[in-house]
Amino acid sequence: VSTEHQRIARIRALFARSSPSISLGIGDDCAVLRPSASTRVWTVDAAIEDVHFVRGLMRDEEIGFRALMAAASDIAAMGADATGILCALALPSSFRDDQLDALLSGYAEAADALGCPVVGGNLTRASELSITTSVLGDVVAMPLTRAGARPGDGIFVTGTLGGAALGLHALRAGHARDGAYGECITRFLRPRARLDLSAALAACASAAIDISDGLAQDLGQLCTASGVGARVVVSALPRPARFAELARQLGRDGDELVLAGGEDYELLFTADVARVAPELAAQIGSITGTGTIELVGGDGRMVPLPEGFDHFR
Amino acid sequence: VSTEHQRIARIRALFARSSPSISLGIGDDCAVLRPSASTRVWTVDAAIEDVHFVRGLMRDEEIGFRALMAAASDIAAMGADATGILCALALPSSFRDDQLDALLSGYAEAADALGCPVVGGNLTRASELSITTSVLGDVVAMPLTRAGARPGDGIFVTGTLGGAALGLHALRAGHARDGAYGECITRFLRPRARLDLSAALAACASAAIDISDGLAQDLGQLCTASGVGARVVVSALPRPARFAELARQLGRDGDELVLAGGEDYELLFTADVARVAPELAAQIGSITGTGTIELVGGDGRMVPLPEGFDHFR
Repeated sequence: VSTEHQRIARIRALFARSSPSISLGIGDDCAVLRPSASTRVWTVDAAIEDVHFVRGLMRDEEIGFRALMAAASDIAAMGADATGILCALALPSSFRDDQLDALLSGYAEAADALGCPVVGGNLTRASELSITTSVLGDVVAMPLTRAGARPGDGIFVTGTLGGAALGLHALRAGHARDGAYGECITRFLRPRARLDLSAALAACASAAIDISDGLAQDLGQLCTASGVGARVVVSALPRPARFAELARQLGRDGDELVLAGGEDYELLFTADVARVAPELAAQIGSITGTGTIELVGGDGRMVPLPEGFDHFR
Repeated sequence: VSTEHQRIARIRALFARSSPSISLGIGDDCAVLRPSASTRVWTVDAAIEDVHFVRGLMRDEEIGFRALMAAASDIAAMGADATGILCALALPSSFRDDQLDALLSGYAEAADALGCPVVGGNLTRASELSITTSVLGDVVAMPLTRAGARPGDGIFVTGTLGGAALGLHALRAGHARDGAYGECITRFLRPRARLDLSAALAACASAAIDISDGLAQDLGQLCTASGVGARVVVSALPRPARFAELARQLGRDGDELVLAGGEDYELLFTADVARVAPELAAQIGSITGTGTIELVGGDGRMVPLPEGFDHFR
């Protein structure tokens, strides 16, 4: 195992990128950001061993990739672009240099996919592996919050839901990354923060949140912040191809995965229905003035709301 | 133990402060910062159980206070003011609500002492307690880096050194917080990030770094970044009152604590000697063109350089 300084030198070389927003990157007490006329958004997210990832199940590069994408997803939900990343790594003393290189290569790949430089961080020892990522972003227009939904707005979801949760179950059941569950496994291991949609969202949405804890819970957060209710048509929730069948083969309820699975890092937003281009997102329901969330099943009957993931439960 | 949402609600209430720099604090996917004409600096620092603090030795409020001050110290070293704080907490499932309240009250006390709001964060479960703090700052004039020292510059240290390291030894030896070692114990448990000196430093310094890993190691970093050497007079290093005697009574070498103890979070900087007000800092030596660091002992002879703290050694 290299010394701390040798490791920092490797990290510095690996993450060296120039950016018009950054005047000083890794290596000093702080990163230095050039002045910006934009409103900025700022978030932090932790990926912790045996809470957010399991080392036996995921490759080190996948752990790194996913940690950064999960953090950057919050920037997309605010209708912003990512400007810079700080990476705080806590490594067990048994973590080898080749493992660190793999983890960082996945992290760097995610940063490059987002077009955003890693400008600093922190390196320390710990008993369990963790990656805590802070991301700064510049908003495209006005920041989107959870609080702007109004009764009558449509509720929209980008991409598909449930794939990451089913992918995790498939991985646990021993399915291969290139088998029948490959698309779902990739959704879990290599999620994409939807920064590609920030500008489109900023142009039409009244409120937004990223779907990290599951649709039911994240929609609940948005409704609470906005002081509204929602009616969601379960059959309208967008799913990966052959989802119900793949879920059934693993003994899982597809609807439950779609409603409460989480970890897809797609965006949930509300908007005037007429302002949303159909290719941007699928409408899954409407905002109501009731203060409760109603799920409508395929038979038109109400479906009970599943509990989302609570880290402390 | 409360649920995650109950805990977030408590944290939100505890940290509620208004700030002209912040348009949205805790509670959404990101904090929102108003545009600023300033160059900004940005850092992250982790405080991890059994690496940076020992729970049996420190009260929870002291753990919280110290975690934030250690992170904010990097902002002071860049000649900047703190603008906002993100707090990523990882808590063991056994961590009780009253312990969390104590930890957060210390954290909030530190934030208030720095005049800087906590604007967001992250809360997760973990097997060991950790607090990862990200701080954004606005530079007063130009950002100070480690890289500007020139041969002939004086080397200066704010406050005193060695107290925190001696305080930790005293705590481990069972000394009370209000006894003979009280001042040193307070230096360890409740360090102060020198944001009070940011503007004075920005007005005179050519390079700066905060002293977290010990003078010898941090001066080494500054010299490496600046491509210079240094000559330091050990007897000129500022120490707490009665330091040599207190160290001797604990069986410690005072010089070694002052040179390599670390954790004082004072500032080390270089400057044209004529530009530094004597009350700002003590001159401890001069920058040279040699590329090595020389320590001059009380007898005029060279003292070997102690190794600083390396987390991976």
